[in-house]
Amino acid sequence: MKSREIHLNAYLKGAPDPKYYDVVETDVPAPGAGEVLVRNLYISVDPYMRGRMSGVHTYIAPFGIGQVMDGGAVGEVIESNFDGLKPGDHVSSMHGWREAYTAPGAGLTKIDTSILPPQAFLGIAGMPGLTAYVGLKRMIDLQPGETLWMSAGAGAVGSSGIQFAKAMGATVIATAGGAEKCAFVKSLGADHVVDYKATDDLTAAITAVAPDGVDGYFENVGGTHFTAALNTLRRKGRIAACGMIQRYNDTSAATLPDNLTMMIGKSLTIRGFIVSDHADMFTDFVSDLGNWMAAGKIKPAETVMDGIENAPAAFSGLFTGQNTGKMLVKI
Amino acid sequence: MKSREIHLNAYLKGAPDPKYYDVVETDVPAPGAGEVLVRNLYISVDPYMRGRMSGVHTYIAPFGIGQVMDGGAVGEVIESNFDGLKPGDHVSSMHGWREAYTAPGAGLTKIDTSILPPQAFLGIAGMPGLTAYVGLKRMIDLQPGETLWMSAGAGAVGSSGIQFAKAMGATVIATAGGAEKCAFVKSLGADHVVDYKATDDLTAAITAVAPDGVDGYFENVGGTHFTAALNTLRRKGRIAACGMIQRYNDTSAATLPDNLTMMIGKSLTIRGFIVSDHADMFTDFVSDLGNWMAAGKIKPAETVMDGIENAPAAFSGLFTGQNTGKMLVKI
Repeated sequence: MKSREIHLNAYLKGAPDPKYYDVVETDVPAPGAGEVLVRNLYISVDPYMRGRMSGVHTYIAPFGIGQVMDGGAVGEVIESNFDGLKPGDHVSSMHGWREAYTAPGAGLTKIDTSILPPQAFLGIAGMPGLTAYVGLKRMIDLQPGETLWMSAGAGAVGSSGIQFAKAMGATVIATAGGAEKCAFVKSLGADHVVDYKATDDLTAAITAVAPDGVDGYFENVGGTHFTAALNTLRRKGRIAACGMIQRYNDTSAATLPDNLTMMIGKSLTIRGFIVSDHADMFTDFVSDLGNWMAAGKIKPAETVMDGIENAPAAFSGLFTGQNTGKMLVKI
Repeated sequence: MKSREIHLNAYLKGAPDPKYYDVVETDVPAPGAGEVLVRNLYISVDPYMRGRMSGVHTYIAPFGIGQVMDGGAVGEVIESNFDGLKPGDHVSSMHGWREAYTAPGAGLTKIDTSILPPQAFLGIAGMPGLTAYVGLKRMIDLQPGETLWMSAGAGAVGSSGIQFAKAMGATVIATAGGAEKCAFVKSLGADHVVDYKATDDLTAAITAVAPDGVDGYFENVGGTHFTAALNTLRRKGRIAACGMIQRYNDTSAATLPDNLTMMIGKSLTIRGFIVSDHADMFTDFVSDLGNWMAAGKIKPAETVMDGIENAPAAFSGLFTGQNTGKMLVKI
């Protein structure tokens, strides 16, 4: 069986561009003992991957040059020599950026697609959804009646988090860029929507919809958003920070206004986090998500591009605002 | 009885200057029922007072123009109509910036000066000491064997915190400005001392003494110190922020390098706090401080200026590095 896969050919400087990636056709070996052959249905492109394309070791190793990249994917089992999986089963894995693969069955996660479609396990029921859940539940400790500001509300984490925060009984302010995305986050249930591209004073725009300030801020953007968050949080406010997409492609040193003294006068708590450190919350997440879905409070949202050859374009699109909801590549 | 006191005559713009203050002589009334007459022995000048001199309501109301200011003070009871206090007793109060006062005895705190001199209750055994304790214990949750970076190590909070962190079993890096202050923080027990005025790359200077990074950073300074802290903290590092003295006199908007993404990759926790929110820790503080003193691990450190008329100069001196340890005015 043949599979096309995406190789990184050089570490990125600045914005992602198709020139950094090669589409390479390979032979997928037949599965050996304990192995399965899987055809991917959807692969995930996520902002955190930008760090791995820089060649710098942060909390996760960089991608190898001239090698296929790893990433989230959901697929269908074609052949199995592993007791726990049979042809037709759906699995999620980190074997993304390729059309098919052979791997030990023990390293794959069987997913139940009777309620949600497979691709939801890359979005609201997967890593971005768990990220939103951990941020709201553990980092912000959001309480019913509180006001939450969700940044990048139209993104994979943001679109999940808006719905979770509403289900948790909060008032939700969502920021997004442009009229189309603002309409989208409104459709997800956000109480107030602010188009950050339509204002040059984000602090004033948030204050206009939350005159008494916000209790929690979910940071996906960084830069001017962070500054406005310090300005608009009320006493004992909390920030959960899992991403700062505005900064990932910077090639020169950026600066920001220094309003950090706000964190003292207001006794703010700011927590950066990486979702993989919080796998212990997965059981609670699945339970709450199931209940919220049963109550009709959740709708998955995704933007889909077709064909493995378009995976680099889909990834680039994360940084130019091409997606509403989770960005996926359909194989 | 006459008392001289310090009135604020205008809200400050920029650095403190004696022109903003008047020395006014008043008559202290004889104590009525339940009241005591107290002669202050020492008054406290503290960086947080700068905020109250700006005319802006933050977490605490601004000082009134043309009125005597409030602030920490320790004094001796001269006359008493209050059952709990007798002449010769020592009390701490918020009736600072004046030589003497009459007030209800119920609002004063009797202090035990058999072990520590009265002025220590304005420093290591008072608000600055409790601030250091809360920051280390509750905000940073410092563990034995960890590495702590204490900024403004020669200040009232810093000089207390260095000694507390050593008593808690940590390795302590202290930053201070100039050779004299560096020698002082070394004498308090700091394992490593960095003169921030002698380097233009604080990140490199901290890394040189802590190649594996620091676990906790105690923020008293802000600006370039905060940036270097994000750079040098290791994974799951914690920042306690109770002051940013570098910023208090800014009259125009300051900027700082945007390295905030560090807080995500390293999963940092940053907690701003105001000591008055943590009065519940006072009992533990007194107990630990007593044990550490009995073990010979603590020495109070102060800089004393003489005469109420020099209180404005003492306050200005906080921002120009005139103090090692707690800055006090002896009456």
